[in-house]
Amino acid sequence: MRRVNQSTRLKPVCIIGLGLIGGSMLRDLVAQGHTAYGYTHSRNGTRAAQRDGFDASNSLVDVLQRAQADDALIVIAVPFDAVAEILDAIQLHAPDCGITDVVSVKKPVYELVLARGMGERYVGGHPMAGTEHSGWVASKEGLFSHAAWVVTYDYALEVDRVPDCWSALFAQVCKLAAATGAEAVPVRVTPHDEAVARVSHLPHVLAESLALVGDKGGTLAQSLAAGSFKSATRVAGTDPALVRNMCETNAESLVRVLDEYVELLETARQDLSGPAPSMKQLSENGHRAYTRMNARSGARRESVSPIKISSRPVMRLHPGAPGWVQQLKQIESLGGRVEVF
Amino acid sequence: MRRVNQSTRLKPVCIIGLGLIGGSMLRDLVAQGHTAYGYTHSRNGTRAAQRDGFDASNSLVDVLQRAQADDALIVIAVPFDAVAEILDAIQLHAPDCGITDVVSVKKPVYELVLARGMGERYVGGHPMAGTEHSGWVASKEGLFSHAAWVVTYDYALEVDRVPDCWSALFAQVCKLAAATGAEAVPVRVTPHDEAVARVSHLPHVLAESLALVGDKGGTLAQSLAAGSFKSATRVAGTDPALVRNMCETNAESLVRVLDEYVELLETARQDLSGPAPSMKQLSENGHRAYTRMNARSGARRESVSPIKISSRPVMRLHPGAPGWVQQLKQIESLGGRVEVF
Repeated sequence: MRRVNQSTRLKPVCIIGLGLIGGSMLRDLVAQGHTAYGYTHSRNGTRAAQRDGFDASNSLVDVLQRAQADDALIVIAVPFDAVAEILDAIQLHAPDCGITDVVSVKKPVYELVLARGMGERYVGGHPMAGTEHSGWVASKEGLFSHAAWVVTYDYALEVDRVPDCWSALFAQVCKLAAATGAEAVPVRVTPHDEAVARVSHLPHVLAESLALVGDKGGTLAQSLAAGSFKSATRVAGTDPALVRNMCETNAESLVRVLDEYVELLETARQDLSGPAPSMKQLSENGHRAYTRMNARSGARRESVSPIKISSRPVMRLHPGAPGWVQQLKQIESLGGRVEVF
Repeated sequence: MRRVNQSTRLKPVCIIGLGLIGGSMLRDLVAQGHTAYGYTHSRNGTRAAQRDGFDASNSLVDVLQRAQADDALIVIAVPFDAVAEILDAIQLHAPDCGITDVVSVKKPVYELVLARGMGERYVGGHPMAGTEHSGWVASKEGLFSHAAWVVTYDYALEVDRVPDCWSALFAQVCKLAAATGAEAVPVRVTPHDEAVARVSHLPHVLAESLALVGDKGGTLAQSLAAGSFKSATRVAGTDPALVRNMCETNAESLVRVLDEYVELLETARQDLSGPAPSMKQLSENGHRAYTRMNARSGARRESVSPIKISSRPVMRLHPGAPGWVQQLKQIESLGGRVEVF
């Protein structure tokens, strides 16, 4: 069995798609001294990345052949609707490389992988970071600092014996996340898709809808809109095509949380109607929920120290060691992170 | 008639309530070299403001008597549920001072003013700025920079002839706004309350509700919540008592925009259900609305210059000059700002 230990270097990383996420990864990896290069279908994006001093190509075939020669880790960083095509190209031009991705839905990607018999070479990923901007020009170093980086492991639960190459790939993906300053959070694809429907895709639907209601207020509403409106609509600035990719691909989970949400608004409406309008319930319960959400999500600063510390419980584990997949299930149930050695 | 011109100094300003808004005003005014002092019912707040070098008192009667002696402009900066009591105290201890306020609903405050026969001494205000924090400790210089500062003028439309003292008071309130770096935006109380229901009170309801839906996702959702969730729930960190004051007092307008909003979500739900989920409509229309809202609201940077410029059309006018109230109506219809001279 091939041992993966703390001193294992990250393999060369080949990033397919150099938008906000892929581009920011490339910047971080190079800044940390790793070998990393990428492909983008956009000629402008390729030129911009090259001008910024990065190793970027506009030829998918060239980049994949190089990855195959390098035994690189391939990261698929394109919107969901382009994933199938990229997987097919990988089959053809980089048949031996390990693969991960950063797509914001995980079950549909995993299904594309399994349909191609590529499960043994794939560990899904999803860094929970971004902005409302897109493309290479929006990419930046440090985007993933202290972010959760979801790493999926369904394959390890589905096979009788986890192949060593898969354990090693899992370790590589965790190291990739760590190299960008993120925290590897093991989650299976279905709970992932349900959770991001709540905390990411629903917020996009709400932001788009609020932008529309605000805009209906005409120039006066435009002139008066300030902090609360701007925060709540920020992600409506995202490229609509990206929003569609996320939300449409995760529609089933999204509809379920949308129903939960509308039910809360209908209760609020009832409480606010009539002779004695009340926001007591919603404002007090909402504030408590806000406090709980902020206690856990992401890094926080200690009151007496400028150092950011993680608020996620950590488990150190060795991919491939006895019981390690059970450990992943445990840490998933706590929303915790893993450090691999 | 008493002339108010550009060179008129701001009168001393007496701020009743030194929370986030009142405290930040006090900081700005003093920093700009104006005479300003304040009252807060909180002993801790008083001590904290004094420690920071500001002229703050814990005695409402003392402060109002001083305002009367100074011929100060009084600013009511308390939550709505304390306004009636403050107006009564002003009647008693500062019977000749002009009054403005910074409460986020304007019709209910105006009704309290009229019920006490104080219309001639009152010009309503509402600076569109804030954070999710409250109290003196949250106050800071520059909070109102380039913000819209609503200035109401219903009284001028309701009387046969606008008294000179009212015109002078209107000018003072515009100068007060300008002294903090804000932009005076004339709006009547009813359109104000409708517009802020859309762009401020609705976002609070949405943030509280999203915090609850996120929290229902348990530790995993907590761990994965990132930018889009944090932006969209930020104002759920506001003190629930303040949220209740705003939303309950403006419930009628709020319920109307809540209905508009739920209708959009129900259309979204329909589009996302079924075999071919689509977010095309909502993401494209929402993105266009977002772009329009951002073109107008607040200051923006010119691409070639670091200077922030206002995106609101400006009208210069002289309060009391012939036709000036009609000018206010015109500029209100454009969501514009006034500069008084």
